[in-house]
Amino acid sequence: MSKGFLPAIVLVRPQLGENIGKTARAMLNFGLTDLRLVAPRDGWPNPDAGPSAAGAGRVIEAARVFETVEQAIADCTHVYATTVRDRDMPKPVVTPSEAAAQIHGLQKMGNQTAILFGPERSGMTNDDVALADTVLTVPVNSEYGSLNLAQAVILVAYELFKTHDTTPVHQPAHPEGLATKAEVVGLMEHLEAELTKSGFFRSKDRQDSMRRTIRNLIQNAGFCSQEVQTMRGIVKSLSRRKPE
Amino acid sequence: MSKGFLPAIVLVRPQLGENIGKTARAMLNFGLTDLRLVAPRDGWPNPDAGPSAAGAGRVIEAARVFETVEQAIADCTHVYATTVRDRDMPKPVVTPSEAAAQIHGLQKMGNQTAILFGPERSGMTNDDVALADTVLTVPVNSEYGSLNLAQAVILVAYELFKTHDTTPVHQPAHPEGLATKAEVVGLMEHLEAELTKSGFFRSKDRQDSMRRTIRNLIQNAGFCSQEVQTMRGIVKSLSRRKPE
Repeated sequence: MSKGFLPAIVLVRPQLGENIGKTARAMLNFGLTDLRLVAPRDGWPNPDAGPSAAGAGRVIEAARVFETVEQAIADCTHVYATTVRDRDMPKPVVTPSEAAAQIHGLQKMGNQTAILFGPERSGMTNDDVALADTVLTVPVNSEYGSLNLAQAVILVAYELFKTHDTTPVHQPAHPEGLATKAEVVGLMEHLEAELTKSGFFRSKDRQDSMRRTIRNLIQNAGFCSQEVQTMRGIVKSLSRRKPE
Repeated sequence: MSKGFLPAIVLVRPQLGENIGKTARAMLNFGLTDLRLVAPRDGWPNPDAGPSAAGAGRVIEAARVFETVEQAIADCTHVYATTVRDRDMPKPVVTPSEAAAQIHGLQKMGNQTAILFGPERSGMTNDDVALADTVLTVPVNSEYGSLNLAQAVILVAYELFKTHDTTPVHQPAHPEGLATKAEVVGLMEHLEAELTKSGFFRSKDRQDSMRRTIRNLIQNAGFCSQEVQTMRGIVKSLSRRKPE
């Protein structure tokens, strides 16, 4: 994905270089690279940022510094302000997944978007938030909602990644080589024959229901072809065993 | 939500106390409290865990320590193993959102579930993973997938929280007090009357299309009742202005 199709992450007056580094790492984990810093407290470059970026140094090196939020978002057409607490501002408020869906659509149509994150302790001022179109609030435990900066960034970056990730939500245990029904039924019949010989089905009354129980548990196991062979080897070995 | 309805987070041979603390914080942010530690490298309690837990001390204090993974998951009926790289193990592989949906269902039906996370550097052994029912893999940037422990935990905890969170994905800018159409049309007509007087509609040909343009932009602004009044004040003030 080219850089032009990705939203910018804007850290507004970030305090610790370490958190800028962790933000870069969280961004790159989910494919974001456009990092913008507004008036970082300890200046820029900051020697604390590199080590905590842990391999995401190229995001740190490409970061751009601006004096004001207005300058940082000048090229953007739609801006989200991430806040934890309710600001009671007349703005739409969206969850990270909804923001990601909107941003995905906006970026696809050629809009440059940006997501603002406030300083570690205080968060953004109401004047910062007033520059945004939409407030992005991460729903958290109402009794304990202290998300740190890089954690807030990673949750948003993760939701953005999900909008274009094509990983199947569920991949079966055996993508290939699942046993055919002939193999599964072969195992059932082999087991039933040996159990009949060993006297397992003592009660004629319950024989049918017991057989169904066993057939269901074999069915539910979802064996691959190889595992059916292993199971048949087990049945064979156990039934060959001499009485002690 | 009572503890009994929440999955356990199991850290398998965690190395740094700081990461255990950050995990506790990530858990509590999204309402998880059942932390289990398997053979933590530096023993337990670990003085490094508390400070990085930042207010989630009660999760640290309630953490239980086990010698083996088998012991840690003894009361569970379904276990997920979180891995980054593909293990090529014959197990279903799910994304965090799919795992969260499954866990939500399992827990609701009274099952205790657990999610395993491996040691910081090496990840879990294949023997650890073999104890799990399902592999949970976070889809990440294929060129840079170095999620740290607490980040992996927070993404999974966040998805679990989403399964029972009732926050609307989109809340309008004005949950109450949106302007009625009578108020909106009143503003349109007021503005059109003043613009007619000021000679804005010079071209008779384009008058209708210009009026529609203005009506659409007022419509799209989504004013609340109060904002319509503010806009009418602005129109009144500007149209009262004397020529210089």
